[in-house]
Amino acid sequence: MREIFEAELKQLGVDLVTMSRQVEVAVTNAGRALLTGDVALAESVIVADEAIDALERDLDERCVLMIAQQAPVATDLRIVISALRMSATLERMGDLARHVAEVARARFPRNAVPHALSGTFAEMNDAAVRVAARTTEVLLTRDLEEARGIERDDDLLDRLHEDTFTALLGGNWNGSPQETVDVTLLGRYYERFGDHAVSIARRVTYLVTGDFKDEVVHLR
Amino acid sequence: MREIFEAELKQLGVDLVTMSRQVEVAVTNAGRALLTGDVALAESVIVADEAIDALERDLDERCVLMIAQQAPVATDLRIVISALRMSATLERMGDLARHVAEVARARFPRNAVPHALSGTFAEMNDAAVRVAARTTEVLLTRDLEEARGIERDDDLLDRLHEDTFTALLGGNWNGSPQETVDVTLLGRYYERFGDHAVSIARRVTYLVTGDFKDEVVHLR
Repeated sequence: MREIFEAELKQLGVDLVTMSRQVEVAVTNAGRALLTGDVALAESVIVADEAIDALERDLDERCVLMIAQQAPVATDLRIVISALRMSATLERMGDLARHVAEVARARFPRNAVPHALSGTFAEMNDAAVRVAARTTEVLLTRDLEEARGIERDDDLLDRLHEDTFTALLGGNWNGSPQETVDVTLLGRYYERFGDHAVSIARRVTYLVTGDFKDEVVHLR
Repeated sequence: MREIFEAELKQLGVDLVTMSRQVEVAVTNAGRALLTGDVALAESVIVADEAIDALERDLDERCVLMIAQQAPVATDLRIVISALRMSATLERMGDLARHVAEVARARFPRNAVPHALSGTFAEMNDAAVRVAARTTEVLLTRDLEEARGIERDDDLLDRLHEDTFTALLGGNWNGSPQETVDVTLLGRYYERFGDHAVSIARRVTYLVTGDFKDEVVHLR
């Protein structure tokens, strides 16, 4: 019984890493599609999101079955419930990457990001790609230095998000309403993407250290 | 043992209803603050959100303890895990109401909603308040007619959200960038609020009927 449970627990970890790698690909391609106006790449992100959703459903089912069949307690239970929550978070990160791709696709053949903000969004996208890669690493290795890196990149995303508002509201903005809407939504998608990664970083940190940092993490 | 579990299960239901009532108050007051520019009311929503967050943490802890100590299976387990997820959803609905209140507060003494869109946002807010009230009802009574009502009001929220884009992008918009940003974000907050209520409606429907409607619900 114990060996089966251990094997299933290990598989949960493998599947979370798989989901996280797919989110990495999604955000990388969504950003490239956004910044280069590559509509085929945008389309591929939108289609690939279904696979992330399917992985989440599958992982969830197995978590619930594991709890029902094996009645784990203490740390084991904490890990399974954390996996349930982290899969929901990764699914949401996939959605946000898809939303970025949807904006890129909707504006084609125009570029959704106005020229004046292409540097800011390139930086946001770099930070989001880094956050996604670190999320995979932290799930794979439980290296808390990566978890701290996610927090730093999330701070950077917040600052860049502020920069977009400064650009829109500083008095020198002469973009169209469509551009204003797109910048507002894209900025929010990237900012939320960082928040979700932070919630994963904190869950993993908690599993490793037992140290509960913040109300953002809902499992104690 | 069984009686204790039954009592704890009942208490989970009571607490979800309590959270839902607080979300109802939050969205009602946030909308009023937004549409009338009442900064004190906006402030009260922002402060009260902490209580919703605290309720969620408390409810979550108890769910995990119940699973650990009583090892529920089948329907019992499904109910406890659904409660975990519904509390996270209600917490998020509280956050969205708080975001609306934050916009209202940030624009004071101006009104955040431009005059041309005050009717649309009044309708959105009415729909969101109705959705919140129905969410409480569906949690309290498991009346599936209320669940269907949530789906209808969510469709209405989506249409009103589209209306805001039509207003912004139809060529007759002459609002400031700040107004464009505010309308974009407020529209998204209300739209997401409806989505979250739908996920609760579907979870309750599933618990009642075993009929799993859609990938939005992550527990099957």
